Amino acid sequence: MPLYSINGPRLNQTLEELGHLGESPDGMDRVAYSPEDILGRNYSINLMKDAGLETRIDTAGNIIGRVSGLDDSLPAIAIGSHTDTVPKGGKYDGALGVMAAIEVMRTLRERGHHTRHPVEVINFTNEEGTRFHRWLVGSRSMSGMLEQEDLDAVDDNGYGLGPCLYDIGGDMSRIGESARKPGELAAYFELHIEQGPYLHNSGTPIGVVTGITGRAVFEVEIEGKANHAGTTPMSARRDALVSASKLVLDIQKMAAEQEICRVSTVGSIKAAPNAVNVIPGSASIGLEFRDTDMKALEAAEHQLRLLTEKTMTNDEVKVNVERHRFTESVPITKEMQALVAEAAENCGFEWEPQASGAGHDAQAIANIAPVAMIFVPSVDGISHSKEEYSTPEDCANGTQVLLELLLLADDRF
Amino acid sequence: MPLYSINGPRLNQTLEELGHLGESPDGMDRVAYSPEDILGRNYSINLMKDAGLETRIDTAGNIIGRVSGLDDSLPAIAIGSHTDTVPKGGKYDGALGVMAAIEVMRTLRERGHHTRHPVEVINFTNEEGTRFHRWLVGSRSMSGMLEQEDLDAVDDNGYGLGPCLYDIGGDMSRIGESARKPGELAAYFELHIEQGPYLHNSGTPIGVVTGITGRAVFEVEIEGKANHAGTTPMSARRDALVSASKLVLDIQKMAAEQEICRVSTVGSIKAAPNAVNVIPGSASIGLEFRDTDMKALEAAEHQLRLLTEKTMTNDEVKVNVERHRFTESVPITKEMQALVAEAAENCGFEWEPQASGAGHDAQAIANIAPVAMIFVPSVDGISHSKEEYSTPEDCANGTQVLLELLLLADDRF
Repeated sequence: MPLYSINGPRLNQTLEELGHLGESPDGMDRVAYSPEDILGRNYSINLMKDAGLETRIDTAGNIIGRVSGLDDSLPAIAIGSHTDTVPKGGKYDGALGVMAAIEVMRTLRERGHHTRHPVEVINFTNEEGTRFHRWLVGSRSMSGMLEQEDLDAVDDNGYGLGPCLYDIGGDMSRIGESARKPGELAAYFELHIEQGPYLHNSGTPIGVVTGITGRAVFEVEIEGKANHAGTTPMSARRDALVSASKLVLDIQKMAAEQEICRVSTVGSIKAAPNAVNVIPGSASIGLEFRDTDMKALEAAEHQLRLLTEKTMTNDEVKVNVERHRFTESVPITKEMQALVAEAAENCGFEWEPQASGAGHDAQAIANIAPVAMIFVPSVDGISHSKEEYSTPEDCANGTQVLLELLLLADDRF
Repeated sequence: MPLYSINGPRLNQTLEELGHLGESPDGMDRVAYSPEDILGRNYSINLMKDAGLETRIDTAGNIIGRVSGLDDSLPAIAIGSHTDTVPKGGKYDGALGVMAAIEVMRTLRERGHHTRHPVEVINFTNEEGTRFHRWLVGSRSMSGMLEQEDLDAVDDNGYGLGPCLYDIGGDMSRIGESARKPGELAAYFELHIEQGPYLHNSGTPIGVVTGITGRAVFEVEIEGKANHAGTTPMSARRDALVSASKLVLDIQKMAAEQEICRVSTVGSIKAAPNAVNVIPGSASIGLEFRDTDMKALEAAEHQLRLLTEKTMTNDEVKVNVERHRFTESVPITKEMQALVAEAAENCGFEWEPQASGAGHDAQAIANIAPVAMIFVPSVDGISHSKEEYSTPEDCANGTQVLLELLLLADDRF
């Protein structure tokens, strides 16, 4: 039996309320740095204050709510996630981790329980990385992993990050100050929806995350020849969209049929001039491969380059492949996995181990602190969509395990 | 020998000057109703005035420059084309026909030649139909062929045509007044670049157009399921972009391999949410088929619907096919073809007959007047691209034939 029960209805009410900020008929739109993102951030700040936390925004724009421990010489234990979303996203991805962390602190405050360690609730900024095509920006800032390319990134309209950071209370000129040293945090725990179908299909309420997948992201640009769609014979065409479409299908097969890596996805496409009466002269696709085995990601990149060379030869188009990201997979230690399993069992929940197919702030924070992650089921495995859903019961279960995990760590660390 | 020689260098200088208005490194951008389009329109108005024409803008936004004839009870002979372009288009498509018509009138004025018929130089608005996805808007207005859908059309941002028409001097509330009755024009002649490779490949300076291709335009929308690209197993995906890519390739094969119609093109594509880390939940493609044989277009539509039904069944996605346009092919009478051939021979040029693969304002005006078209070679058959090019000599040759054609018609009609 857990020491204290979290307040499930209260937790789910905050998820609902947050889920109305930036809501549209097509899904959630709290893309980082947007007015809707700021609404969500402010909502979390107000809840943190109500929970008795002292809030600040670091220079990278991360929101940090802190409560003192009985022994403030101890490093803080951090819990949290993010409240930004992808375009047309869901109400649970990230949001659950932040709302759960706040619910944990509200419960402790009500019970008058003082932890030995200071505790920090963190709402990391820009986990999804939509606008500037650079992700985990807040958590990578905090763990000192930002690269020059992150700082120089511009959005699709050529605007830079500086003014965006200013809008959310950060400071580009001092962004380095957001970095924290190894040892400053005793641990970081993140509750998150699985975003895949495994827990839902097996009926298991809790996933103990064993590691976070590696990810390689590419942009492929194809240059053919724009020409009149009515007058150019089929045999004289160099149609960039036809070449791009072949690549989309070949890349899909890499995971679906050839099993070169676990998943392969072409998520974005553009064609130019993109007019129905013009043969597309250029096209570009954005794609990614994911696997916990880094060798599989290398093999996938190799295959991608073979495919694009074949396209150049066969279709007489120019193809340029640019690797945008190559994120190492992050293992979670056996000790930390065992602690999550113990917390789940204390709460009376079945659990199963699983690798995370998605990236999370925890993988960045793993550079400066031990991390653990708790998953709860996603109905039908749907995520990054308006149909993303986790039941109120599952959300409350995960939050209960997060509280138990915090108390176990506070006791032992 | 022609009666008068047009001024080739002067003609090509106007083409050059017009080609700097809306020019960008990616090609010409004088999309109808844009500020750049208005620059091009104003340039043509000033040239018309210099050529002694009395200019007006009709309620549909067409620019009409008129000169009286010796017998103003005769219907006018019209010559012209359009100065709007596709995005990233070329300097000759449309532009040549307008600049040539003006050069013809300058030549006649210099020689003090008065035609029997009044002559009108017409710069039709919005031939290309980019912004509102409705084409030949000016010429169809003039020939009384506008449909309610043309008037109700909105651009990709939901804006309607009214304010655009106002910007160029038209008047949406009285657009019907731009329609002219059959018999009001004695004939309409249009010089245009071929936009295909046939004249260039055969080395023939003049094409006598035998008819204008029919065209069927469709939008296909595919609805799959947006989901997380890292956590969703390949087998559980309903990826709208994968389905769209199969359609792109199948549609290309309809003309390229199956020869169901002369040309088939997917010119535009969109995916949503179009983020690299999300499986595309929806996608749409814009496509067209062209053939002078309307039976072939019907067969192409039939095949398209078979393909989309197959996609629905095999990929478990929803597919919606919408037919945007179905334009009948327009034959040009033997008499008018013979008149163009005679004009070419009078000027000492080889000619060959050919069907137009592209649509032109002439096909709309054919509803109210006899029409003829003259083609000149496009280097390498490239059009709707910044590399569209016709030699100064070919442009001058075509203009010479246009003058001769006008004089022949003025004599005989």
